[in-house]
Amino acid sequence: MLRPWQLLLGVALSLGGALSCFIAGVYFQHAHAQLLLQQLLEQDPYVYHVSPKLQDLFAFFPAHFEAHNRLGQLMKYGFPGLDDVRVYSDYVLSYDRRNRVAHWVCEHLDASKLEPPRGVAVRRNQARYHADMSVPSNFRATLADYRSSGFDRGHLAAAANHRAQQLHCNETFLLSNIAPQIGAGFNSGAWRKLELYVRELTEHFGSVYVITGPLYKPSRRHNGKWGVEYELIGANMVAVPTHFFKVIMLESRLPQGKPYMEAYVLPNAPISEQLSLRAFLCDIREIEHHAGLQFFDGLRRSQIFGSNFPSASQVFRDFD
Amino acid sequence: MLRPWQLLLGVALSLGGALSCFIAGVYFQHAHAQLLLQQLLEQDPYVYHVSPKLQDLFAFFPAHFEAHNRLGQLMKYGFPGLDDVRVYSDYVLSYDRRNRVAHWVCEHLDASKLEPPRGVAVRRNQARYHADMSVPSNFRATLADYRSSGFDRGHLAAAANHRAQQLHCNETFLLSNIAPQIGAGFNSGAWRKLELYVRELTEHFGSVYVITGPLYKPSRRHNGKWGVEYELIGANMVAVPTHFFKVIMLESRLPQGKPYMEAYVLPNAPISEQLSLRAFLCDIREIEHHAGLQFFDGLRRSQIFGSNFPSASQVFRDFD
Repeated sequence: MLRPWQLLLGVALSLGGALSCFIAGVYFQHAHAQLLLQQLLEQDPYVYHVSPKLQDLFAFFPAHFEAHNRLGQLMKYGFPGLDDVRVYSDYVLSYDRRNRVAHWVCEHLDASKLEPPRGVAVRRNQARYHADMSVPSNFRATLADYRSSGFDRGHLAAAANHRAQQLHCNETFLLSNIAPQIGAGFNSGAWRKLELYVRELTEHFGSVYVITGPLYKPSRRHNGKWGVEYELIGANMVAVPTHFFKVIMLESRLPQGKPYMEAYVLPNAPISEQLSLRAFLCDIREIEHHAGLQFFDGLRRSQIFGSNFPSASQVFRDFD
Repeated sequence: MLRPWQLLLGVALSLGGALSCFIAGVYFQHAHAQLLLQQLLEQDPYVYHVSPKLQDLFAFFPAHFEAHNRLGQLMKYGFPGLDDVRVYSDYVLSYDRRNRVAHWVCEHLDASKLEPPRGVAVRRNQARYHADMSVPSNFRATLADYRSSGFDRGHLAAAANHRAQQLHCNETFLLSNIAPQIGAGFNSGAWRKLELYVRELTEHFGSVYVITGPLYKPSRRHNGKWGVEYELIGANMVAVPTHFFKVIMLESRLPQGKPYMEAYVLPNAPISEQLSLRAFLCDIREIEHHAGLQFFDGLRRSQIFGSNFPSASQVFRDFD
């Protein structure tokens, strides 16, 4: 016969074992769901966007999600907007289906990756402009729209920023990343100068985020009222932006250093070579107002960012 | 002494018990996370949008999510677009931060809820137009923008469609749901007629979805090129749409019946009272092209919807 203390011990052990197994089950399901969620958020920008809220789903063990791939790196500081967000191999884009031109394109430049790795050849002349077949035909710009329109096919994410793989370079030639730009004096002039400046900054500061997009800026009309007016090209009615912006953020190399932002707005028009880029510096809130976007999570900006404008800043001192 | 079979039985029972507890633990965590997710997706439109993908997170027990509240009802057929989606008590809206006017507003009308419940008084004259403080100030329209602009504050979701509670009615007076409309001959003319027609349809067919929004339609300019041109009012530069659309979907009362869609586009201008509403019927794909939206999930449309245009349909036969 079992003695009472043996019985008690047995019952206690059984209960303890059962509880352990129960907790193991909870943990197993937790870890498994977390793994699947992690995979999902590395693929889908909308899942990634809501992932801080999804952390609260796992109440018994701590959960933390982060996309460790290119998406997570590019969108580290938040989405400027959520309209038709698309993830490509080396940039993320929000597509304006109404205007057949992107709302914004986000790039992350790394000084160590501006040139292709040893032994890899990435050639711009192997890339071809091509329509983005992932965009529904009703909203898609095609090569025919640009043909004999008088406008250049201007890159938003610059091709020369994406030279780690041939695929990265090729994808910048998707028409989703292209907008109608004036050629002489703009695409091959001031806009090119701005792109070169961004790469110089990258070499100097190491890690740079760039958000590029079109503006359809209001102007005063003959009758004194304000209005928006822009041209459309081709059968698919691709909008010709009146201006283009670039918002640039330099990550500090210091562990507690604040990031630094500056922004440029250039009119889509021939720009005199005499003019310095600094003439086109613009208040970021003004770009946000006209573009309807929020850069790098506007709410927390004053806390986490250094002042951006006007500025006799370190950046300008280095580049004057 | 225990006999061998007793020992075996004991071991088997322990293992079985441990396994059961483990599975119970898995199920417990599954059910708990599912509950939290369910709560989350009833509040957040982006979580709701990705919820079919989140079902796959739960691999061991079946999971199915559906928002059982107003959000789930309103967005049953998908989101026309995902730009700044906002959920109000009786309608869902996507806000165009660039134009300070909504992209689209989605309503669901139910014949049994067109009038307030017995004993509840819902009065339109208790509602006041007011700025939507949930929109960041940089993108917010204010009462001052409309004042002496010469335009009416026109409802997108009509006030008279939302009479179940005073709150529902009040929220249609948020400026997010308002757009500058020509008063005489439009807001108090053809547009009003269209709103009445939608309510008549509801009384007749029981359940009607309505998506309403502005268009900024291209026109041919003096130089023969196409362009977009629209006015802006007030210090916050609220866009004056050139047209407004309504896409209407009637749910069939038959269990396997197909929904039926039709769409109207009206110019934001005085419209002769002689003109029948049918003069403004429009191909839904054309609205999608100009608005950059997809109504009721374009991909599956041909499978699930009856033909919408042109139409000597049941609807018209009933309402002629």
